[in-house]
Amino acid sequence: MTPEALSALHARFGEQLSTVPAVLDAHGRDESGLEHVRPHAVVFALSEADVVDALALARTHQFAVVPFAAGSSLEGQLIPLRGGLSLDVSGMKKVVEVQPGGFQATVEPGVTYPELNRLVRAQGLFFPVDPGAEASLGGMASTNASGTGAVRYGTMRDNVLELRVALMDGRVIRVGSRARKTSAGYDLKHLFIGAEGTLGIITQLTVRLWPLPSHVVALRCPFPDVEAAAACAVSVMAAALQPERLELMDAEGLRAVNVHKGTSFPERPTLWIELASPSAAALEEALSLCRELCLDAGALEVGMARTAAERAALWEARHHAFYALKALYPDHTTLSTDLCVPLQHLPAIIAFTRAQVDAEGLHASLLGHVGDGNFHVLFHARPDDTTVWARIEAVYDRMIAQTLALGGTCSGEHGVGLHKRRFLAQEHGEALDLMRDLKMLLDPHGLLNPGKILPDC
Amino acid sequence: MTPEALSALHARFGEQLSTVPAVLDAHGRDESGLEHVRPHAVVFALSEADVVDALALARTHQFAVVPFAAGSSLEGQLIPLRGGLSLDVSGMKKVVEVQPGGFQATVEPGVTYPELNRLVRAQGLFFPVDPGAEASLGGMASTNASGTGAVRYGTMRDNVLELRVALMDGRVIRVGSRARKTSAGYDLKHLFIGAEGTLGIITQLTVRLWPLPSHVVALRCPFPDVEAAAACAVSVMAAALQPERLELMDAEGLRAVNVHKGTSFPERPTLWIELASPSAAALEEALSLCRELCLDAGALEVGMARTAAERAALWEARHHAFYALKALYPDHTTLSTDLCVPLQHLPAIIAFTRAQVDAEGLHASLLGHVGDGNFHVLFHARPDDTTVWARIEAVYDRMIAQTLALGGTCSGEHGVGLHKRRFLAQEHGEALDLMRDLKMLLDPHGLLNPGKILPDC
Repeated sequence: MTPEALSALHARFGEQLSTVPAVLDAHGRDESGLEHVRPHAVVFALSEADVVDALALARTHQFAVVPFAAGSSLEGQLIPLRGGLSLDVSGMKKVVEVQPGGFQATVEPGVTYPELNRLVRAQGLFFPVDPGAEASLGGMASTNASGTGAVRYGTMRDNVLELRVALMDGRVIRVGSRARKTSAGYDLKHLFIGAEGTLGIITQLTVRLWPLPSHVVALRCPFPDVEAAAACAVSVMAAALQPERLELMDAEGLRAVNVHKGTSFPERPTLWIELASPSAAALEEALSLCRELCLDAGALEVGMARTAAERAALWEARHHAFYALKALYPDHTTLSTDLCVPLQHLPAIIAFTRAQVDAEGLHASLLGHVGDGNFHVLFHARPDDTTVWARIEAVYDRMIAQTLALGGTCSGEHGVGLHKRRFLAQEHGEALDLMRDLKMLLDPHGLLNPGKILPDC
Repeated sequence: MTPEALSALHARFGEQLSTVPAVLDAHGRDESGLEHVRPHAVVFALSEADVVDALALARTHQFAVVPFAAGSSLEGQLIPLRGGLSLDVSGMKKVVEVQPGGFQATVEPGVTYPELNRLVRAQGLFFPVDPGAEASLGGMASTNASGTGAVRYGTMRDNVLELRVALMDGRVIRVGSRARKTSAGYDLKHLFIGAEGTLGIITQLTVRLWPLPSHVVALRCPFPDVEAAAACAVSVMAAALQPERLELMDAEGLRAVNVHKGTSFPERPTLWIELASPSAAALEEALSLCRELCLDAGALEVGMARTAAERAALWEARHHAFYALKALYPDHTTLSTDLCVPLQHLPAIIAFTRAQVDAEGLHASLLGHVGDGNFHVLFHARPDDTTVWARIEAVYDRMIAQTLALGGTCSGEHGVGLHKRRFLAQEHGEALDLMRDLKMLLDPHGLLNPGKILPDC
């Protein structure tokens, strides 16, 4: 960034601009463990006008712009590879409108999903996408995040109705519709969802809200091995029980949770299943069917969390599993995979993964949203242990090759960022060229979050 | 089309090519009632290679290509405005794969949704998008069609996992993923869904299948007026009953159905609601809550269709309502609107519409998928009655202006075609320019279904 650019930013943004080293540091990393890169400056945007003006200055002075909010991305999306400006929208927290009768809310991108949930709970509504971290809705849309609720309610893609997006050329466009469905022209909304800030900056979102289920229970079923647990997950889906959540954690994950949270869950591969129903009687029927399925599939027990407090404790444990696993080996670096396969292939890809991990003598933990066919393998090793990291990367490559052969995807919910760029050609073939064309169309000078998603843009 | 182009087509396609007048006629219209325009030739494609080769010849000889399958579009999408080639993919009927365990099927674009349903029923599965006509899945994806099932299962957009698309430049790309969710790069799939064949030709689809609900009942609730019925629909949605279907038909619609099908439904504005549950007990609870809601909202009675045969008869009647209404006035032309608003605005927009129709002394019937905030007004008049048609168009314009002011869309499910092009600038503002840019990127010579969606492309 040139001195002229910096003084132009200062003239426009005054105290909203920071070049304090600690601030630059905080905007140079996410939760991926990838190498930090400092931006040259940070602007704390408070309005759409701030975003538009920052982009205008970027255009004039040709510096890169990387959007930033909660800082919880897992694939290096927020790292300003080429320096430039980190555009922090975490202060854009306006709740523009909540429409309980229309099951929707319109918010600015810095609002986090727990904040939205606290806001709408009194109306008997909730927002179902829960990636775990205290993530912002703008960031969640930008990576098409999901979480435990996706098996029942879909991902961000399914829960964003309308966006306002600031484009690199100065336009602000509204894409999508507040209506539940539309067939009025090309769908531009889905271009910006999952684009990781490389095509435009989201300045407002209208999202869907859902009625809070009235009768809910969570089941905890430990299994003798991961493969049996995965096969049971497939049976639960096939039985049309339509669970609210269907999660798998392995023994190591439960050990980490026990250490981290002081819990005493059996340290076995475990399915955590949540069922809900509008009536108590219906819930009991579903519960009894699900319990039977789990026992038939080899569950060692079927624990139940019936009260709201019990369930909250259980899902908090699940949401903290990633951090608990990282905390178990504080001097290690962690790498999380994120593949997703068609459900019928889930047991096979899990067995393949275990075999690969064992053959290479690696240390890895598995946890995932198995009702969607999505799971994460957390590899870890000392940062300087190049031999082990080479083996990890080789296993990762083989896992992805196998996933793609089964019709799956290299990323179910974390996005591409830096680490998965190398898989995109393999996954998309010639469609990748069309992605490049779209990037050129919307950001011809490559100023929007350069180096992310596309290997060469 | 030049004689050279025609002989090149003949050399490649032989008996798959037709220039027989009756065949050209049949490919010059859809169900919109818009003016027929004959293509110069029809190719009956039987494979992806046929589609690719037809596009290659179009590129060489610069003729227009309009995809055609079931011919059931309602907005003139299939009309070859500038002549050229009608590319009939209705013979591409291969079922590539059905994966019951993965809840998905891969088919060619000529397969219709009733054909798919007959195929997967034995596995306890179904495909929920039901636009009414015997529509093809390729055409349904191209207009983002929906129908009565959308309130519970979403539209084509929500039920297409993966597409193969032949592009104008000769490439065939695979977009989307067979995994239930993906965050791996820009979403190209949604560009082609709803693009009405203007960006590429769909040659294969992988769609989601759903478990057939085990316990189902349909309710029939006549109301004293349309406004009360619409308000009740909003209450049913707010009560989180998650109906399988939630339809409104007005008195005229029921009269048409009675005449057409020999039924004797009360000729009153009526809600048709379908509820389903995994258990009989749960269904009874939902039923009793729904019944109470309807009676509180002023329902004159609550009829029930409990057996599969009764329900089939009821939904067949609903699906035939459009044709029944057309048949009521055989010498009239029909125009159907298709607006969709956020649910909380449904009663207001229906009241507005009725007031407009009455003020202009028009004849119109209202029916719709009100659980989604989507409804159709069927206007009709003698084709040569220019005074009445001018009034109809004026009311239509005012309905759309009001819809857009309420955050709605000019098309919930029929697409844009020819008739709604004039509303797009109003609905999308500057985003329309980006749609034009996308069209230029994928079809620089304007050969793919020219004149559709975008007013000037």
